[in-house]
Amino acid sequence: MSDMYTPEWVKDAVFYQIFPDRFAKSARVPKPTHLEPWEMPPTVHGYKGGDLLGVVDKLDYLQDLGVTALYFNPIFQSASNHRYHTHDYYRVDPMLGGNRALKELLDACHARGMRVVLDGVFNHASRGFFQFHDILENGPHSAYLDWFHVYTFPLNAYDSDGALGYAAWWQLPALPKFNTSTQAVREFLWGVATHWLEFGIDGWRLDVPNEIADDAFWREFRRRCRAVNPECYIVGEIWDDAERWLGGDQFDAVMNYPFTRAAFGLVAASSLNQREIGRCGLQYIAPLDPPGFAREVEVLLTRYRPEVTAAQLNLLGSHDTPRALTIVGGDESALRLALLLLFSFPGAPCLYYGDELGLSGGHDPECRQTVPWDHPEGWNRGLWEMVRKLAHLRLAHPALRRGRFRTLYADAELYVFTREFGGERLVGALNLAPYALAAKPLPLELSAARAEPLLGAGRLEAAAAGAAHLSLGARSGELFQLA
Amino acid sequence: MSDMYTPEWVKDAVFYQIFPDRFAKSARVPKPTHLEPWEMPPTVHGYKGGDLLGVVDKLDYLQDLGVTALYFNPIFQSASNHRYHTHDYYRVDPMLGGNRALKELLDACHARGMRVVLDGVFNHASRGFFQFHDILENGPHSAYLDWFHVYTFPLNAYDSDGALGYAAWWQLPALPKFNTSTQAVREFLWGVATHWLEFGIDGWRLDVPNEIADDAFWREFRRRCRAVNPECYIVGEIWDDAERWLGGDQFDAVMNYPFTRAAFGLVAASSLNQREIGRCGLQYIAPLDPPGFAREVEVLLTRYRPEVTAAQLNLLGSHDTPRALTIVGGDESALRLALLLLFSFPGAPCLYYGDELGLSGGHDPECRQTVPWDHPEGWNRGLWEMVRKLAHLRLAHPALRRGRFRTLYADAELYVFTREFGGERLVGALNLAPYALAAKPLPLELSAARAEPLLGAGRLEAAAAGAAHLSLGARSGELFQLA
Repeated sequence: MSDMYTPEWVKDAVFYQIFPDRFAKSARVPKPTHLEPWEMPPTVHGYKGGDLLGVVDKLDYLQDLGVTALYFNPIFQSASNHRYHTHDYYRVDPMLGGNRALKELLDACHARGMRVVLDGVFNHASRGFFQFHDILENGPHSAYLDWFHVYTFPLNAYDSDGALGYAAWWQLPALPKFNTSTQAVREFLWGVATHWLEFGIDGWRLDVPNEIADDAFWREFRRRCRAVNPECYIVGEIWDDAERWLGGDQFDAVMNYPFTRAAFGLVAASSLNQREIGRCGLQYIAPLDPPGFAREVEVLLTRYRPEVTAAQLNLLGSHDTPRALTIVGGDESALRLALLLLFSFPGAPCLYYGDELGLSGGHDPECRQTVPWDHPEGWNRGLWEMVRKLAHLRLAHPALRRGRFRTLYADAELYVFTREFGGERLVGALNLAPYALAAKPLPLELSAARAEPLLGAGRLEAAAAGAAHLSLGARSGELFQLA
Repeated sequence: MSDMYTPEWVKDAVFYQIFPDRFAKSARVPKPTHLEPWEMPPTVHGYKGGDLLGVVDKLDYLQDLGVTALYFNPIFQSASNHRYHTHDYYRVDPMLGGNRALKELLDACHARGMRVVLDGVFNHASRGFFQFHDILENGPHSAYLDWFHVYTFPLNAYDSDGALGYAAWWQLPALPKFNTSTQAVREFLWGVATHWLEFGIDGWRLDVPNEIADDAFWREFRRRCRAVNPECYIVGEIWDDAERWLGGDQFDAVMNYPFTRAAFGLVAASSLNQREIGRCGLQYIAPLDPPGFAREVEVLLTRYRPEVTAAQLNLLGSHDTPRALTIVGGDESALRLALLLLFSFPGAPCLYYGDELGLSGGHDPECRQTVPWDHPEGWNRGLWEMVRKLAHLRLAHPALRRGRFRTLYADAELYVFTREFGGERLVGALNLAPYALAAKPLPLELSAARAEPLLGAGRLEAAAAGAAHLSLGARSGELFQLA
């Protein structure tokens, strides 16, 4: 296996991102008493009490939806509902069910052929993390001074008046930055990574890994992880150009926010909620017409090696963005078109939990709401059905996962692509216009009289030699199977 | 086994108290870089880097000394060198070697027939303890509000200007007091207690258990501990009257500081260092003449049931007092007399580490110095030999462990006691005077011409009927074996 290898299973995967406090709650995990009601809007600091056994309970739902891999926001012991403020890297949060619940979840997932990727927060700890706490308590006498970047005493971890005295992520006192030049720290972090792979997880999503600007650190990280599990997935949270990390010796892939931008730029050019977008890491999404989108696709598909492109984590939203439906200004047709792209594009689609039910909401905390399991009357069943159909189409058609992606046609209203693998050929079409297209000519030779519409929405028929006629409703898309 | 049962092994034990950061250091435990040099005087906040495998390395030394049980100051993960500020109750501090080192220590001790008692700090946690940290981080939104006694927000755990906002031991911000009326907290603490008994420890020394003024809590604590290990020792840190806890359904015994006071009051009546004594929990030690001491002995031996008295943890000092040699104002003869009492008295003698080598020093941090293993030229070998002799005499003579203790004689200069068990009869004599006693008549019938002096220091010879003559050097003591 060469260094350039990326895990095969990722290329076939349909991911689902779970924010553990908010997805589902099991009565089998004892809970503290002071939780917020599940149905109320989330707050920045409150806990809802979701847990990992709640996820186990929903595996039927997820498998039925077509999900084959779960990516979890952090699950280790943390004094924050998002759990990015790690208190203990070796312990699954007790409120999530502890290590035993993770074991049960892993066993249940693996029995179904599902994979589990965890969020690895290795750049910074929390101010409650043991070795940092030791510095807080003992000042210059601490045995762990070199675990963090300490500048001056006293540290002002809880007192906003004084100078912080230490390096912290975004100068946030709660998030002291590890000193990864200290060997003990390196070993500690690598040890955490391999421990949980040995425990049974299938990969790491790396939180802000660019903040550890140390190629040797990540190369050794990869070596050790792969030594434990040669199929483990290492995907970095890098929002823009990630070439530095994708040479084959650091990450397999990154969270594909450039895809997010391009997809939304196309499908919601006129409805983008730039105010909400501006509050998150996406900052701004440039509207794109189909030819502009086609150019972006070229960039997306050629920027990295094919091995990487096929293993990218493509997404329409996450805990760090507004809900997809909110990004597109509430235009459900735009979301549906974006989902068609997501499930048709090279790289693994990753659905943010609840997007399939039509959840909407702005930036944190709104986008981290609970799933209204007990209120199915509020679910968008049409959307759910479409997601389910797209996911299963992807699983059924190798061309959608492994096929070559090419733009076939793009004009002011229409974007058409093909994906081909072995003898299989699929055509995807997106009508961006607010009106239906009827028998619109496409430069496409059909071997049969008509192509099979996999979503059952459009029509593609042979016309003159080397041409076909496409019919497609306003603001809708279709996947056609040829031959 | 009735409720009134106290562990048999305790009655036969010779305890040795170890302050883990300071006793011994093993190269097998990786250490942080920022440690204080072993040889330098200890500081309030610094770490020396002693560890549990260092203790394993010294088991030959301890067994040779006559030690059969170890009582450890706290060993769980903590951001303080004394580790009373618990950060994690389920993890042995990494600097001590972690859980694996404890396992190795327990196995090594048990293979030698030695027992291990840990310090249980259940009244308060530290401000880095997970559930308290959650309150610090999330304020009124914390899921764990009812784990502590929170009065007002914001909490001022690190800001001495504001009101603390929560209950803490002695109002120390670092030590938030558990709310033991919350069921989850009770279960947590009981769970910790039984977990480590299942792991293999032989008992708990309970730190400030009187602060949890809740008999039901301690009754259930005992029930659960005894269910795991019917021979586990439960000994409370109660400095004065402990009747409430010693009814047979809570603790087996307590740390016998009243014995400490009485013993020092007798042996060092004229040299007590009241200034240092006043800085610790002993506060003041009343000088006693032998008749006064005899009266104290009566109180000590009749205050609790015999089962309790035989299981008391008798001590001359601890991490919470000045060194024994310092308490007696540096008078080694007084320390030797006190040691004779310690090893002759009903209840298990507990030696504070290093006292056998003649370490001296005032209250914390001075009394918590490292053992100068590499500087044997500084050891008091005479003292060490005496301790070793006393410990082995105790192990060899059931009368010293199980025998009835009676004051035989007391006057202004002399205190004489007997201990009898089965057919064995021992007489102990302490000459408090700064001059030798020669052929001093005692109301004692000897069956042989002379009694055997076990320490080889004094002489006890038959005189007229019902009388014996005692000869003993100035400020010295002896144990005689009769018949």
